[in-house]
Amino acid sequence: MKKIINAVENVEEEMILGLVKSAPDKLRKLECGNVVVRARKKEGKVALISGGGSGHEPAHGGYVGEGMLDGAVAGAVFTSPTPDQIYEAIKAVATDKGVLCIVKNYTGDIMNFEMAIDMAKDEDINADYVVVNDDVAVKDSLYTTGRRGVAGTVLVHKIAGALAETGASLEEVKAVAEKVIANVRTMGMAITACTMPAAGKPGFELADDEMEIGIGIHGEPGTSRETLKPANEIADELLSRIVEDIDYTGKEVAVIINGMGGTPLMELYIVNNYVSDFLAEKGIKIYDTMVGNYMTSIEMAGFSITLLRLDDELKKLYDAKADTPALKK
Amino acid sequence: MKKIINAVENVEEEMILGLVKSAPDKLRKLECGNVVVRARKKEGKVALISGGGSGHEPAHGGYVGEGMLDGAVAGAVFTSPTPDQIYEAIKAVATDKGVLCIVKNYTGDIMNFEMAIDMAKDEDINADYVVVNDDVAVKDSLYTTGRRGVAGTVLVHKIAGALAETGASLEEVKAVAEKVIANVRTMGMAITACTMPAAGKPGFELADDEMEIGIGIHGEPGTSRETLKPANEIADELLSRIVEDIDYTGKEVAVIINGMGGTPLMELYIVNNYVSDFLAEKGIKIYDTMVGNYMTSIEMAGFSITLLRLDDELKKLYDAKADTPALKK
Repeated sequence: MKKIINAVENVEEEMILGLVKSAPDKLRKLECGNVVVRARKKEGKVALISGGGSGHEPAHGGYVGEGMLDGAVAGAVFTSPTPDQIYEAIKAVATDKGVLCIVKNYTGDIMNFEMAIDMAKDEDINADYVVVNDDVAVKDSLYTTGRRGVAGTVLVHKIAGALAETGASLEEVKAVAEKVIANVRTMGMAITACTMPAAGKPGFELADDEMEIGIGIHGEPGTSRETLKPANEIADELLSRIVEDIDYTGKEVAVIINGMGGTPLMELYIVNNYVSDFLAEKGIKIYDTMVGNYMTSIEMAGFSITLLRLDDELKKLYDAKADTPALKK
Repeated sequence: MKKIINAVENVEEEMILGLVKSAPDKLRKLECGNVVVRARKKEGKVALISGGGSGHEPAHGGYVGEGMLDGAVAGAVFTSPTPDQIYEAIKAVATDKGVLCIVKNYTGDIMNFEMAIDMAKDEDINADYVVVNDDVAVKDSLYTTGRRGVAGTVLVHKIAGALAETGASLEEVKAVAEKVIANVRTMGMAITACTMPAAGKPGFELADDEMEIGIGIHGEPGTSRETLKPANEIADELLSRIVEDIDYTGKEVAVIINGMGGTPLMELYIVNNYVSDFLAEKGIKIYDTMVGNYMTSIEMAGFSITLLRLDDELKKLYDAKADTPALKK
């Protein structure tokens, strides 16, 4: 294993500290664990929390800040945060407007967020959650019932975060988060696996001419192993699966060309060149495109494509100000 | 070679097209070659151009936009753009305020930018250039006389771009660019080499326990090969070289923890955790920190640290609005 780290057991904490020290006027870390919250708590708004295992940086700590999250909980790499840790995060950010947790669809994450929410309710904190399940690659997997939550989660942070910032109610913020979830789809692939620090070796092996289609973000193999094809053919395969799942024709979409952590921007731009043409040809109008590392799988080389179907409400919230380390609008 | 591309010979053009299509309201590509300019030319300001070989994405096309560059010229991967190509870029962006080219210190780049500037002067375009040489790792190299230009170039774009946007004169914009150059230093390292698409194999080989210190951004080996150490020791080594070169004590600095393209953000945050503590201990005040992929070497895994010594003038320009695909302020 070749990594720029200190000790395997300190990866999560040092990473969170390094993130917070990159924006100490905006972020702080809770003493009790790897939880990032806004440096100045904002009252009078629904507090948004996200989280999950580490290894998806900048998700989720990088999205804490004005217009997006109020807190992010980082478990060990690819491991759900504990209920106690999530509960501490909820307590730290809770306002009288309530708390909404944005949870990616993994069995462990949901179980632990649910337990933490129950603990918070016992303390009279009005907490609720939504489950993001944008990955069209799998219906069920080792880690999930139903589709997995992947890069589309960032758009839930963005849009629910924008509405929360206006002082909307918990019900309204939850409803818009669920509207994003209903309209966002993602599919990904990889040409290399990633190595969890604690494991010390890649999650799977790929030959020099192989790729994994339908990859997740936890180092697990995808849904099919194929011979590596030209970028345009790969993008076509992923896009075809996405537009099969939702009819985007005639609609406006936000697009994410998401790098998995080890993918050069050169390749992501090449992919976007095709994605852009594909969408135009299908009569799908691109409202905005984000190209970069938004929801990663440590140093995995690969990408995912996310499409969010927009209407006027979602466009307005998508465009609203965000000021976080990983996303500015 | 395992890459998400179509054909080796189309990498540069498809990449530039993909970048432009990610922000078609803000960027356009010149018909004549791989040159990115603002979609709407802005008159009444000095036009800023940067460029060089491709492979450093998002540099430089990703920095075209309000508050930064007016144009970026992309040569083949790790190859200087041709004088003709640079000349077309200069013609496309030139205003009556003149044109300033921001050139990284590589012999080929300087020669070709100088030739293009001479061609532009023959057409009565008032063009000039500055040379960025922030890399403290080498005094001279295969490609340079003096230090190389690396990630500090992004801060020259940012600060000279902010001043140009105010309508300052060519002399003033050149002077502030040179002030940044005088105050910015960088040093980098890598744990893997990168592969130029046309070469098909890595520029050098590293054993599983080796790293290159003093790496450049063109796939060339660094200045010394060492056994891989913990992140903090590596960061200490790079920082020590930087603060030897300029006395930053008691000053405020802007910091870039720059990923080389294949480095996960997890590792960059871990590095920043140490950098931040190191600077505090030396009595160097951190004004702002950027963590991410700003000046890359395709998919190389590694990082560089950049420090820019700031004064009130530079801080104001650093903070000024920027709206580009790769950097927003």
